[in-house]
Amino acid sequence: MTTTWNRHHLLDLQSLSAGEIITLLDAAREFKGVGQREIKKVPALRGKTVINLFVENSTRTRISFELAALRLSADVINFDANVSSLKKGETLKDTVRNLEALNADFIILRHSASGAPHFLARFARSHVINAGDGSHEHPSQGLLDVFTIREHKPRPDGTLKGLKVSIIGDILFSRVARSDIWALTRLGAEVTLCGPSTLVPAHFERMGCRVTHRIEEALDGADVVNFLRIQQERQGSAMFPNIGEFASLFGLTQSRAKRLKPDCLIMHPGPINRGVELESELADGNQSVILEQVTNGLAVRMAILYLLNGAANGS
Amino acid sequence: MTTTWNRHHLLDLQSLSAGEIITLLDAAREFKGVGQREIKKVPALRGKTVINLFVENSTRTRISFELAALRLSADVINFDANVSSLKKGETLKDTVRNLEALNADFIILRHSASGAPHFLARFARSHVINAGDGSHEHPSQGLLDVFTIREHKPRPDGTLKGLKVSIIGDILFSRVARSDIWALTRLGAEVTLCGPSTLVPAHFERMGCRVTHRIEEALDGADVVNFLRIQQERQGSAMFPNIGEFASLFGLTQSRAKRLKPDCLIMHPGPINRGVELESELADGNQSVILEQVTNGLAVRMAILYLLNGAANGS
Amino acid sequence: MTTTWNRHHLLDLQSLSAGEIITLLDAAREFKGVGQREIKKVPALRGKTVINLFVENSTRTRISFELAALRLSADVINFDANVSSLKKGETLKDTVRNLEALNADFIILRHSASGAPHFLARFARSHVINAGDGSHEHPSQGLLDVFTIREHKPRPDGTLKGLKVSIIGDILFSRVARSDIWALTRLGAEVTLCGPSTLVPAHFERMGCRVTHRIEEALDGADVVNFLRIQQERQGSAMFPNIGEFASLFGLTQSRAKRLKPDCLIMHPGPINRGVELESELADGNQSVILEQVTNGLAVRMAILYLLNGAANGS
Repeated sequence: MTTTWNRHHLLDLQSLSAGEIITLLDAAREFKGVGQREIKKVPALRGKTVINLFVENSTRTRISFELAALRLSADVINFDANVSSLKKGETLKDTVRNLEALNADFIILRHSASGAPHFLARFARSHVINAGDGSHEHPSQGLLDVFTIREHKPRPDGTLKGLKVSIIGDILFSRVARSDIWALTRLGAEVTLCGPSTLVPAHFERMGCRVTHRIEEALDGADVVNFLRIQQERQGSAMFPNIGEFASLFGLTQSRAKRLKPDCLIMHPGPINRGVELESELADGNQSVILEQVTNGLAVRMAILYLLNGAANGS
Repeated sequence: MTTTWNRHHLLDLQSLSAGEIITLLDAAREFKGVGQREIKKVPALRGKTVINLFVENSTRTRISFELAALRLSADVINFDANVSSLKKGETLKDTVRNLEALNADFIILRHSASGAPHFLARFARSHVINAGDGSHEHPSQGLLDVFTIREHKPRPDGTLKGLKVSIIGDILFSRVARSDIWALTRLGAEVTLCGPSTLVPAHFERMGCRVTHRIEEALDGADVVNFLRIQQERQGSAMFPNIGEFASLFGLTQSRAKRLKPDCLIMHPGPINRGVELESELADGNQSVILEQVTNGLAVRMAILYLLNGAANGS
Repeated sequence: MTTTWNRHHLLDLQSLSAGEIITLLDAAREFKGVGQREIKKVPALRGKTVINLFVENSTRTRISFELAALRLSADVINFDANVSSLKKGETLKDTVRNLEALNADFIILRHSASGAPHFLARFARSHVINAGDGSHEHPSQGLLDVFTIREHKPRPDGTLKGLKVSIIGDILFSRVARSDIWALTRLGAEVTLCGPSTLVPAHFERMGCRVTHRIEEALDGADVVNFLRIQQERQGSAMFPNIGEFASLFGLTQSRAKRLKPDCLIMHPGPINRGVELESELADGNQSVILEQVTNGLAVRMAILYLLNGAANGS
């Protein structure tokens, strides 16, 4: 089901075919091996310039992309938008055109506005990679999530057909949820979304998911449960319950975890609020694959850079 | 007219001869080619240590120097003076002597005080490069500006003899203007300065320029018009008109642009305040070489690093 | 007296034997030569990942470790904890486990809490290097101090036997003092501590030091005087005299310096408060080895990285 990769940008997962997703995941499996070598470095992107343009802070995602680029031997520039000309009123378009004038090969963009990477892609010569845009998508996170599931629940055809995956928490404003949903449904998984009705409105059913507001329905029979991070900074808004109430209704406690199938994977995109989304023992327990997700994220990002670079050469 | 390069520092353009400027520009032309290669990297500065000591923020200039050094295979350290011992009351001299104790080969200094790089050069063993000092000079910007003009208006002898170049805006406090003026006049260009009389006082005529306060006189017959960035942060000072008034008197509108010769180049050091110094259509139009300036800046900075490094070896 | 290195972490000097310290110092001497070469780079750590996890700011120490790693050809990531998930309430343990999931080989930790690196070492797979923890230890600083002394006052057996070293200033809260004391006493030096009784309590005698509150007793007959930096930010606390009073009682003036033996070394970990701990002429005079300390710090840090890396391979 693997297909040739010929996209110039990686903007979202919504527009990828199952074949394209599988091509990315297969490449990531190769790169995962590089991280286990004595010398964790390959020359694939030597002499290429990668710019981390993070208009919204995210140390973890930035470091993961930075290391991915360094291990591919690229030159990496971190562009901190807090001290940059963006603060002097320059437009994002002008910033990116200036970076491209430096012969940048890749622009990795994190931005608080949904659609910002798509906007760039309309005029950019370089490869644009979406590292998270508003509440829209976070494609490398979606890919690392399906990569991690596939490693533990392999199917001969490389898909996730028939797997039951529950995503629990603040779905409405989550770019991780959206990218997960696109990748999972494209690969044939059955997705259940769970959270309070203010944060998991019924219209998500149109994305091909089941919606429930009872945690038990999300846990029973699931092959994977993915708990999203509660954005504590959004506390106090009308739509958002307080943390304690949220944890008591939707957090994974040891008592609730007894409902899980013994081989059900527990996932979380990090950083965890221990005792809120998950009790500590479960985050660190033998069903948890949370740290594997981090490892796989680096492999997935190396694969993204590698495949986009190849596309530029028409290969 | 090329001469051998044997300076240890690059502090200003005022003290460079025409031959030295041409040597730098010729080297930059070679390095411009590196940016267009598949592998944008040469080993010239392998094992050398370049320190970006930016006591005043400038993301664009820092990135351009950082990439120049990386493409020459140097090790680069970004020293952010905002979180550094400079805040603990250490003197600039002590900071630099400490960096030199780490065997730094190059100190690239951005500083709000005019003359700071010259002060360093009095005791520094390493190569000091002025990346902008107060309202004094910004030599790499001046070089990239004359490089860009020379690419479009070549003369057999490598100079800019007889070319009419107008610089428009806040001349009085502009380090870009000063470096441009020195480089342009050294290479034989005829320079006109234009802006309100508070910002373009008559004494600039002593630098060999014509001074006018009417934009039409700066536009008519010019081969190049270079619009300087309005520092909005200086708004409200007694000498500075408000932005709207400035734009209406000295901004390049489409209607005013009709006065320009069809092959007149439109330049701006960036970042542009669209609709203030220039209307957007002109910034992006076919007379604009603004993005080429950025590309050329990287080539010029590679040439500076390369030639200074060679000087150290007595070559 | 050299012994084989087989520690996985470098957490403190207290637990090192004299033989281990000498092994580190001997390795550092080799690496000091790399800094004087035309190409300051060796391939020893190629493909290794070094993370500078600085939860407390320290530009100088961070740059020294960063350059040490780059000159060993490692990939280096600077993790600025001010903008990171640590601010989102993630625990230090989770942060480090996430970094290790990226196959980090080295975590260089600076932290305001004493004992933080030891805490990490309880679960970390990677090599943990203490780059300063609270008022506990700063082992690379202690090593560079004894390295510097040993270069100037060599003994055939590589120790500092019989040398008289005085440490003057705020001992109580100083991690530098503690690491110095452990390294110096282990190598056989006779250590005198000097400062006001609030900052140099008598219980330091239990560490094998002489304690005095009269500067003259610290200066007379000393082979080395090491002035610690006054933390001006601690001014105003009840235990701390004002700066002027401190300087007049414990600062090294030219008049006091006449008591020093002509070959007595003057040291300071930097950055210096000129006119407080030391008069400027003495900081820059021919007895001062303050800038050598900086140079030696880089060599020592290369040696630490190199030896820990070798230990991982069981060599």
